[in-house]
Order: sequence, then C-alpha cells, then structure tokens
Amino acid sequence: MSVRILTIKEDILGANEEKAKMNRELADQHHILMINITSSPGAGKTSLIMQTIARLKNKARMAVIEGDIASSIDADKVSKEGIPAIQINTAGACHLDANMIRKALDNLDLGQTDLVFIENVGNLICPAEFALGAHKHVLLLSVPEGDDKPRKYPLMFTQADVILINKIDVLPYFDFDMGAFSESVGGLNPAAKVLPISAKTGEGLEQWFSWLEGALDRRK
Amino acid sequence: MSVRILTIKEDILGANEEKAKMNRELADQHHILMINITSSPGAGKTSLIMQTIARLKNKARMAVIEGDIASSIDADKVSKEGIPAIQINTAGACHLDANMIRKALDNLDLGQTDLVFIENVGNLICPAEFALGAHKHVLLLSVPEGDDKPRKYPLMFTQADVILINKIDVLPYFDFDMGAFSESVGGLNPAAKVLPISAKTGEGLEQWFSWLEGALDRRK
Repeated sequence: MSVRILTIKEDILGANEEKAKMNRELADQHHILMINITSSPGAGKTSLIMQTIARLKNKARMAVIEGDIASSIDADKVSKEGIPAIQINTAGACHLDANMIRKALDNLDLGQTDLVFIENVGNLICPAEFALGAHKHVLLLSVPEGDDKPRKYPLMFTQADVILINKIDVLPYFDFDMGAFSESVGGLNPAAKVLPISAKTGEGLEQWFSWLEGALDRRK
Repeated sequence: MSVRILTIKEDILGANEEKAKMNRELADQHHILMINITSSPGAGKTSLIMQTIARLKNKARMAVIEGDIASSIDADKVSKEGIPAIQINTAGACHLDANMIRKALDNLDLGQTDLVFIENVGNLICPAEFALGAHKHVLLLSVPEGDDKPRKYPLMFTQADVILINKIDVLPYFDFDMGAFSESVGGLNPAAKVLPISAKTGEGLEQWFSWLEGALDRRK
C-alpha cells in the first residue's frame, strides 16, 4: 500500500512540475514577473499585496491570483482597487497547484500585465511541495507566530527568495527574538533576503518595493 | 487519473477512521479523556497546554503527544514540567494520523493517565480530514490571524467542540471584530463553545479549566 501511494504522489508531483514549467514559459513569453506568496493563515499576505498595489500601480500593470479553500474575500478586496483578480477556491485542497494557476492565467490579459502575484492558501506546509511556475517565492512570517517557525517548518523557509517578517509594529507585545530567528534562517537558507516590515503602518516597506522594482527591471 | 487518486484517498481515510476508532476504544478502556488541539502555526497551542498543566497537575495525570514536521521544541518544554511527552515528527506530512497516535499511546503508561492532549501540526486544513480517536476537538484561533478565518477554513471550524480565541491581551492592537467572528462561527457550528482567552496573561482561562474539568468528571 505505501509503495503504491508513494508512486501516485511521485506521479502527481512530476505532472505538476511539467505544468509549472509551462506556466513559467507562458509568463516569460509575455515578460511577466510571477511571484508566489506563502504564509500561515492571517500573516498578512493580502495586506502586503494591497500596499504594493497602492505604491506601484502607476509603474507596473499588476494582476492577482487568490487561493483559498473557500470564500472570495481577498479577490473582492483587490478588485475594488481596479486590479484584475482571479479567485481560486481549492474546495478543501491545502495548496494551489500548477494546473489551477494555468487556468487563472488563461483568464488574465497577459499582454497587458507586468506582474502577477499568486497568493497561496494560508499554510506553511503543503504549498512548499507544489511548484507553480513562479519566478520568485516570497514567504511572509508574522511576529505573533513566533521566532521558532523556521525550525518547525524548514522546507518552506529553505525555498524562499525573500522572507518578510510582518507585523513589526506589534514587536513590543510579543516575545519574538529577531536574533534567534535570523540564526535559524541563516542555517537553512543563507541566500534569502530577510526584511522586517509592517504592512499596516508601512514601516520597512521601502526595502520590499525596492527589491520588487529591481526584480521587475531585470525582466524587461 | 483523478478517479484513481480519489479511490486511494478514500482508502487512506477509511483505514485511518478504523484505526481512530481503535485509539478511542483504547482510551476508553483506561478512562482517559483524549483531546485533539488544532490551530495555525504559532497560535498558542503549547502555551495553552503549559498553562493547563500548571493548573491541573494536582487534579489529573496528564500526558502530551506533540506533532510537528520537525524539531522537538514543544515536547522539550512539556517534559521540563515532569509531564510525559511524546514528540512525533511527521517528516513533511501536514497532519497527524491515527496510526501515529497509536504508536504514541503505546509509549505512554495508560494505566497512570487521565488526560491526553494531542497537539496537532500547525495547520488549519489537513488535520480536519484525519480522525485521531480523540473525544473532543479544541480549535485555537489567535487574534492576530483575523476574524475572517471561519469563512476561509470552514471545515476546521465546523468540527470543533470548543473554539478558543487566544491572545486577547493584544486585542487593542489588531482589527479583530468579535461580533463578526461570532456570527461566522454561529453560521457554521452553533453548538461550539467559544471562549476568549490569553494563554499569556491567564485572562479567560478559568472558563477553559472549568470546561475541561467538567469533561474529565464525565469520563469517570
């Protein structure tokens, strides 16, 4: 039984990997930068996207693909800003996959898009196993979750290009040790860029915008 | 392919359900109350367990089964209090299953135990699908995660006997609407007991201890 399950899992991941490559090629054809954003539930992915839309909407044509088990709360927020948003409801599945992303891309005007944010399902585990074809992986950890998360969820932290520590406006009210966190991340993924931010107050966001604009420039 | 996967999934869930029933029977034979605690990463499951150990250690003989992808951080904390703790590392799996719990139970002195806490992997999705044999399901949501979580992760909220809203000590610093939260929960699971608490300051914990002692008394 276990060998059979393992084979099925390899089949699924292999097929997903192929489709992810095709997504990447599609984005490349249109010179689109595609960014996969992951985090625990409620860490602030949508707030980060909203702040980024407000700041960059005159510089880049953005679109957002929202992944949730249920509801369209996040896509509704993005649409109100006049940005194309596709809501994917995974109907129980704990992550987005490459096939879902392809369907969403097919519903966007790719010729009129420079930057696609993919907001993955709130989960520090399963999304790490499923490639989507994104060029960059941004992981958001919020201060209230605690500094021990890299040790508990290592794969996700290993894969990130950028790790944003969100909600630093509430640092005084939590026992979050920035030094211990940096040390854990350094042991897993020394190349990751770690940026403390508050998507609520705007603190630290300049560094995020600057990283993003640099990545956009390199796509041109 | 999808039919084949669905069949495999049903096989897995069916076999798990059987093993969960056996865990429940084993606990019942020893008059043990077994409680499954789920939440997002960093919502405060371990802090709740530590507070409960401090309060009830002279009234009930407790043991803790800790589930994590990696590390033994949580089991180490519990062991320091002189309480038996079994750490399960799921090696990537996003939830505990009934088989893992059986192995942990086999490593506890059940004749000397009244109450077993199972701290599930930090995840609002996958643990909802895998029965463990627990008598009660306690779901912890923390204020910083936001009041919209029942709408985004409905299955988990539907299954809970008790929903603890943790970290109410930081309510002034977050936009958490207690009324909107209660309304969402009421629509999904009107029978659930909702208790606002702070595992850090102790606020509201009396209601939790009182619920737990009631459940323990009913097991005798």
